[in-house]
Amino acid sequence: MSLEIERKFLVKNNDYRSLALPLIYRQGYLAILPEREVRVRLAGEKGYLSVKARVDETTRHEFEYAIPPEDAIFMLDNLCNGYRVEKLRYRIPDHGLIWEVDEYSGDNSGLVVAEIELPDSAYPFSKPEWIGEEITGDDRYLNAALALNPYNNWQHG
Amino acid sequence: MSLEIERKFLVKNNDYRSLALPLIYRQGYLAILPEREVRVRLAGEKGYLSVKARVDETTRHEFEYAIPPEDAIFMLDNLCNGYRVEKLRYRIPDHGLIWEVDEYSGDNSGLVVAEIELPDSAYPFSKPEWIGEEITGDDRYLNAALALNPYNNWQHG
Repeated sequence: MSLEIERKFLVKNNDYRSLALPLIYRQGYLAILPEREVRVRLAGEKGYLSVKARVDETTRHEFEYAIPPEDAIFMLDNLCNGYRVEKLRYRIPDHGLIWEVDEYSGDNSGLVVAEIELPDSAYPFSKPEWIGEEITGDDRYLNAALALNPYNNWQHG
Repeated sequence: MSLEIERKFLVKNNDYRSLALPLIYRQGYLAILPEREVRVRLAGEKGYLSVKARVDETTRHEFEYAIPPEDAIFMLDNLCNGYRVEKLRYRIPDHGLIWEVDEYSGDNSGLVVAEIELPDSAYPFSKPEWIGEEITGDDRYLNAALALNPYNNWQHG
């Protein structure tokens, strides 16, 4: 078990693309409840089953277990009721931390989000020039929320 | 992933008790949906996370993964909304198959259920003399159902 402390931002331009090679992520949800979620993920060729439980706006309990990729594929295809998200993930090292930039596809295409995981909520970090508006705590950008209500369904004004 | 084909019975007497030493099982539910469940279990000193999805009355897809017991304990104590079941489980070998007899405690005390897992739904098996009425397909006896609506809440007539 780990505590996951994250800050999340929109992305202003594509300059992050030259900083890492992305992996294809497919993930879906076996359960989406207000207080927790159970997620299955295929990250490149690896499968994972995760339980995440909300603590507060920036913090969640996270349990993640490696599972056979064929199990992940079966669950994604059969047990997620279509609550799925697909994206390319770029993992970009930065001063000992890692920016994860997600380029969504499918019903969330056009959305690009950057996250940084922090050792504690007061930990200092610097923002690369391609980092835009902060969206930490905006539940619409949770992957589980994007599976239920994709970006392309939002009212863009 | 495996297909789980099970038959389930009530138990007529305590003669099974001399046939095996039981383990203490604590299990709870991270999600209970009509079509599937996500279960965390502590079996003796071992932890498991499972996904079960209904195929038909006797058959379910089952995915089970070993997890650290401390993770299982945290999830049981904090992430199951009180949807828990406790029981003693006796595993009794019988002609190459295994009877699992569950003596429930807590809000399900008084209930004893025996299950046998079969290689296929037509596989022949014999019933020990302590096996009673068949309850396969009676959803009230699913562990997830017993977590939501315990045996001691039923109208016994």
